[in-house]
Amino acid sequence: MAANFQSSDSIRSGQPLRYAKSVTFNKPLPLELGSELPAVTVAYETYGTLNAARDNAVLVCHALSGDSHCAQHTAEDDAGWWDILIGPGKPIDTDRYFVICPNILGGCRGTTGPNSTNPKTGKRYGSDFPTITIGDMVEVQRRLVEHLGVETLRAAIGGSLGGHQVLTWAIRHPDRLRGAIPLATSPRLSMQSLAFDVIGRNSILRDPNFYDGQYYDKPTGPNVGLALARMLGHITYLSPQAMQEKFEATRQEPRDVPTEFEKKFSVGSYLAYQGDKFVERFDANSYVTISMAMDLFDLGATSVELQSTLAKSRCRWLLASFTSDWLFPPEQSQELVSALIALGRPVSYCNVASGCGHDAFLLPDEVDIYGEMVRGFLNNLNGTSTPPANNNDDIYVHGPTSIFQHRIDYDRIVELIPASASVLDLGCGRGGLLGRLQQLGHKPVMGVELNEKAIVACVEHGLDVVQADVNEGLPAFTDGQFDFVVLSQTLQTIFNVEGLLTDMLRVGRRCVVSFPNFGFQKLRQMHNEQGRAPGSSGLLRFPWYNTPNIRFLTIADFQEFCRERKIEIHQCIGLNTEEGREVKEDVNLTADMAIFVLSLPA
Amino acid sequence: MAANFQSSDSIRSGQPLRYAKSVTFNKPLPLELGSELPAVTVAYETYGTLNAARDNAVLVCHALSGDSHCAQHTAEDDAGWWDILIGPGKPIDTDRYFVICPNILGGCRGTTGPNSTNPKTGKRYGSDFPTITIGDMVEVQRRLVEHLGVETLRAAIGGSLGGHQVLTWAIRHPDRLRGAIPLATSPRLSMQSLAFDVIGRNSILRDPNFYDGQYYDKPTGPNVGLALARMLGHITYLSPQAMQEKFEATRQEPRDVPTEFEKKFSVGSYLAYQGDKFVERFDANSYVTISMAMDLFDLGATSVELQSTLAKSRCRWLLASFTSDWLFPPEQSQELVSALIALGRPVSYCNVASGCGHDAFLLPDEVDIYGEMVRGFLNNLNGTSTPPANNNDDIYVHGPTSIFQHRIDYDRIVELIPASASVLDLGCGRGGLLGRLQQLGHKPVMGVELNEKAIVACVEHGLDVVQADVNEGLPAFTDGQFDFVVLSQTLQTIFNVEGLLTDMLRVGRRCVVSFPNFGFQKLRQMHNEQGRAPGSSGLLRFPWYNTPNIRFLTIADFQEFCRERKIEIHQCIGLNTEEGREVKEDVNLTADMAIFVLSLPA
Repeated sequence: MAANFQSSDSIRSGQPLRYAKSVTFNKPLPLELGSELPAVTVAYETYGTLNAARDNAVLVCHALSGDSHCAQHTAEDDAGWWDILIGPGKPIDTDRYFVICPNILGGCRGTTGPNSTNPKTGKRYGSDFPTITIGDMVEVQRRLVEHLGVETLRAAIGGSLGGHQVLTWAIRHPDRLRGAIPLATSPRLSMQSLAFDVIGRNSILRDPNFYDGQYYDKPTGPNVGLALARMLGHITYLSPQAMQEKFEATRQEPRDVPTEFEKKFSVGSYLAYQGDKFVERFDANSYVTISMAMDLFDLGATSVELQSTLAKSRCRWLLASFTSDWLFPPEQSQELVSALIALGRPVSYCNVASGCGHDAFLLPDEVDIYGEMVRGFLNNLNGTSTPPANNNDDIYVHGPTSIFQHRIDYDRIVELIPASASVLDLGCGRGGLLGRLQQLGHKPVMGVELNEKAIVACVEHGLDVVQADVNEGLPAFTDGQFDFVVLSQTLQTIFNVEGLLTDMLRVGRRCVVSFPNFGFQKLRQMHNEQGRAPGSSGLLRFPWYNTPNIRFLTIADFQEFCRERKIEIHQCIGLNTEEGREVKEDVNLTADMAIFVLSLPA
Repeated sequence: MAANFQSSDSIRSGQPLRYAKSVTFNKPLPLELGSELPAVTVAYETYGTLNAARDNAVLVCHALSGDSHCAQHTAEDDAGWWDILIGPGKPIDTDRYFVICPNILGGCRGTTGPNSTNPKTGKRYGSDFPTITIGDMVEVQRRLVEHLGVETLRAAIGGSLGGHQVLTWAIRHPDRLRGAIPLATSPRLSMQSLAFDVIGRNSILRDPNFYDGQYYDKPTGPNVGLALARMLGHITYLSPQAMQEKFEATRQEPRDVPTEFEKKFSVGSYLAYQGDKFVERFDANSYVTISMAMDLFDLGATSVELQSTLAKSRCRWLLASFTSDWLFPPEQSQELVSALIALGRPVSYCNVASGCGHDAFLLPDEVDIYGEMVRGFLNNLNGTSTPPANNNDDIYVHGPTSIFQHRIDYDRIVELIPASASVLDLGCGRGGLLGRLQQLGHKPVMGVELNEKAIVACVEHGLDVVQADVNEGLPAFTDGQFDFVVLSQTLQTIFNVEGLLTDMLRVGRRCVVSFPNFGFQKLRQMHNEQGRAPGSSGLLRFPWYNTPNIRFLTIADFQEFCRERKIEIHQCIGLNTEEGREVKEDVNLTADMAIFVLSLPA
């Protein structure tokens, strides 16, 4: 089945990919922006085996300059561009999943693109190749997936432009996709990224060797323009820090690469090398075609439009961005996440701390986080989620969330929430409370958390959790979205107390808030008799100069706070955690922990 | 004196600048990297009048694509590139100062550059123009300044590449400069910025119309390459936010500009217009020459090298960066500031909050901050500083610094510091304490502050203050750099208490720390008897959920803290601020404020 889809004019069409197969669909492909392609060939590679139920297929979508070779087929095979993620035992485990990776429409590695022969004319398309969209790319992928006998994909995954394809799959083919994993992507390009693309295209289109796109039979194509575009791309794929680390030590010691570009500085010789090398494996017309499809991609300019677009989806979602990515900045992934939250869709998200820039999703540095999230997410897509191993074991100590080791309050909180109520847990840690609630049949349950590893743990257990700082409130959530919103043992670590409580009461029909009570007798005595800042064990074990607890309040203070704001107090429960019991009398003196159930007045 | 320095070939050499004068130095100019220029012409403009003492000259240094026309000469004159800063009554007040603005060496607006005629050959230099440095530019400026009868400049000011010139002036001609004002600049380019320059030069040098730099007699020069370089530059001058705001609303509605570049998107038509327009007023060889000089500029790779270079300076310093500038990121200005601090040089600095990116120093948006700092700095350069109007009036409420209105503690602190001791005041506000100390003859006195407006006020009063967050410690300061380091009424707002106190004791031979005492009887009673979070008036007037005070400590707690760390307590002074008196007995009970004098053990 290995097809002869590669032109021998290899410089502009790439070497044949050893393991690529191909299929040609002779049915014309109508294009989103008008006109059609008379026939389409798709080059693709597969890994693993389609199971009998035909429900283990994972579609891998490549980015601008990628191809179908996402992973090695054998130990001797050329490296694949996502070997860190795909293979036996890896996050996308080819022992379990049937992986499909096609070269995209408009590409130059075997799938129909500008360097293909137009069957109508017998000549290369060149710049006659029509303007295509991400939607057109996905339509070709859909044909391929059907051809392979797959009705519903377990998941589609891709970063950058690959993420745009995943998003399009979820929206266009909601019934054919169980899980969507768009990484380091966006609802549409930032204006800055779009501007870089414009310059890249201009450098190709204004290269005198472009010949209006019909350079295939010329001695030289727009190699300078394409190389310049690639150099520019390379800067945008790296973070400023990564560039500094890579080239600073050898600033004025360029490598002696054979090039006609400037090589005065080490970064210059690197860019020259990358530019020249790219020309050998990529076609300038494909660059123009694909980058334009990316620039035209647009799920909506406003949150309302974005929600309306994403409302068509029916899959579960896992998104990740990378903190130092400035080409697809994290705020863009967060726009997608916010829209999905507002729609009440099952979504998990992490903004992975990384110094690697946009390229992070291709690099091993942070694969322990995003790779394990992918593994956990795929594991749980068939509805068989694994509950957290130990429900009371939220051991993470991090910033303004769960600083607490023994969670006696969980027992009480679980009792307070009526059967089947939906719950949002703020500062959910590794999902101890959420896991219990999920097992008890609460639905949906969702968490908000800051710590990356805690998020990974939640995703591994099939829980939906998004990374956010509750100090910024809950802007993504809609009014009355959850029956219950829980803030347990976190209030005393919050800067923006008023903002958060206001938002909790907006989002939750009821809210549960628990906190350590500084009115507790022992703490009062310590302060009064010893003249010392009150401290204790557990949550209050930290010294005054080094504690995450930055708000000191008593039960009486909190009651006054609620009274002043006309917040209704449904319950005020006092716990003496040292003695492991509830206290009923004079709670501001006898309780070291308080649990309040609140709501706005009816 | 208006000279005929402009070629009629105006496209590549610019139109003659109406008010520009010029002078030719026939003495050869030896160049830093070898070879020489046989003669140098400088085009320049001046504003205002040189006073009799010849000590009111301010040199204005332009950036890459600037020229000598920094301001209007008359209301009818063309706009100048720094009209917001320079003119009668403006921060650089031409009623007071004699402003000199030369076109830089290598430029194309009248000063000798690649488009000038080489007197030795009678032909344009073209690419025979030698590689020059910022040092060479400054040497030409020095000749001009001397020619104008100025021995010592009151100040030199410039942003970006202009800042590089200012830095070079300060180092090369320490006796000729009283004040240096480098804005939005760096000790050397970041690797990312350098990489952008490399691409810009490659796009010019590989343009087939470059003809090895000898394109002046050709029908077309490397216009496409130069336009591409300019487009790229434009992206880097704007912040991502600014680009979004500017082009998002009209994303797919380009302006119909006459251009051969892509104009599919609004940002594309903008870049095309800017690129095409630039070609009409700038010479590609100048772009290559000047950008290379910028890329070669290097004050040192490490803080040690940077200090060694800056040690040659003898001027006062004012630096500003802009938060959204990613071409010359604030950290780079901070490297300069840190080196100057370590050297004990008089320096003020502010990282001005701005959404305008690198261009901010040319725009009016933040001129109220950086312009007023420039005005205040220039005002105080002649040694006649204005003391703060009201020494007890630190009214700013901002983040973790001066949240306090009446400063009874100042009186006591001033007494505690021996005559002529040097003082660093952390969280100095508008300089209330520093101003008093300066008037009492303490020297040097210096402040650290977060609030922009407070910094402006300090600079207006001739005080040296740098913007920094003391939660990050005092990394720029050297061991034992000050006799006294003061932290008044700020300890209780600090997250990183241990880190800051450790650094204070490293930098100050003695430290003064004042804070509100939570052991005060009234506060203990409130907690103990009412079961409420203790609060009071003044510093403690904020409610538990909304107070900048995040650390609760008593005098006894602080004494223990010092004892555990073997910090020597020289004095522990208790104040009852409500009664306005010092208390001597049982201070942890009777004082609502404490002042400690500390040091490391001898």
